[in-house]
Amino acid sequence: EDASEFQQQKESLTQKLQATEERNQNLEARLSALEQTVENTQLERETFRSHLRSLLELLDGKIFELSELRDTLAKLIESS
Amino acid sequence: EDASEFQQQKESLTQKLQATEERNQNLEARLSALEQTVENTQLERETFRSHLRSLLELLDGKIFELSELRDTLAKLIESS
Amino acid sequence: EDASEFQQQKESLTQKLQATEERNQNLEARLSALEQTVENTQLERETFRSHLRSLLELLDGKIFELSELRDTLAKLIESS
Amino acid sequence: EDASEFQQQKESLTQKLQATEERNQNLEARLSALEQTVENTQLERETFRSHLRSLLELLDGKIFELSELRDTLAKLIESS
Repeated sequence: EDASEFQQQKESLTQKLQATEERNQNLEARLSALEQTVENTQLERETFRSHLRSLLELLDGKIFELSELRDTLAKLIESS
Repeated sequence: EDASEFQQQKESLTQKLQATEERNQNLEARLSALEQTVENTQLERETFRSHLRSLLELLDGKIFELSELRDTLAKLIESS
Repeated sequence: EDASEFQQQKESLTQKLQATEERNQNLEARLSALEQTVENTQLERETFRSHLRSLLELLDGKIFELSELRDTLAKLIESS
Repeated sequence: EDASEFQQQKESLTQKLQATEERNQNLEARLSALEQTVENTQLERETFRSHLRSLLELLDGKIFELSELRDTLAKLIESS
């Protein structure tokens, strides 16, 4: 009788352990996937910021060229 | 002897189960924290895009006003 | 005979004088008209320059506003 | 006596004629100078308008380039 009871307890523990380990693997997979997503998002953000910085430089160039054009107009008005 | 062996196995299983459950809780906490981070990042991204859209509208306005200025200059040249 | 000759000379001189005076009046009228034209042209030029100066100020404003927009974009990129 | 009077009249007419012709030459010189001024002014105006047209084309270019930059920003925002 004792032996049978022990056997039952052991099986129950083994099942619980298996279920918990499965859940563990599942959690690890989700965590790993999410970490990959975070990393990708971070990379996309860096790429996006890099594109925005290029655009900012282009805008700087245009503002500079408009200022030159403005100076040319100013000189033209004064010389006329 | 048999009883002692069963007892040992039971203790070993219980320890493993506890360790696995602890690891489980740890993984769940990390997953939850990471999900929060992803959500926050998504919100920040939306706010950022919203600011960029406002900026785009301002830029549209400036381009439109420069075009009006250009037309005024064109008319001025033709009328002179 | 002498008297007749003198009379002829006098008439000739009087005709020349009249012709010259007429030409004089004509020249004065043309000069006056041209001076008026020059004055009008000068006024038009001043008006034109004044309009160009207004346009230059508008352009200054647009360049300033584009620079502000540029600074907003720069801050947005750095804060993200 | 008559001869002397004729002589006086003749001299008076000759002097008036000379004075009028001198004034004539003076007027013609002023008219010629003013015509030259008007012509130069017209040429300067054409040169000025030509410079303004070049400037207008440059401004067109800058507005076009700003519009392209605006489109790049719009696409960047939508793609993010």
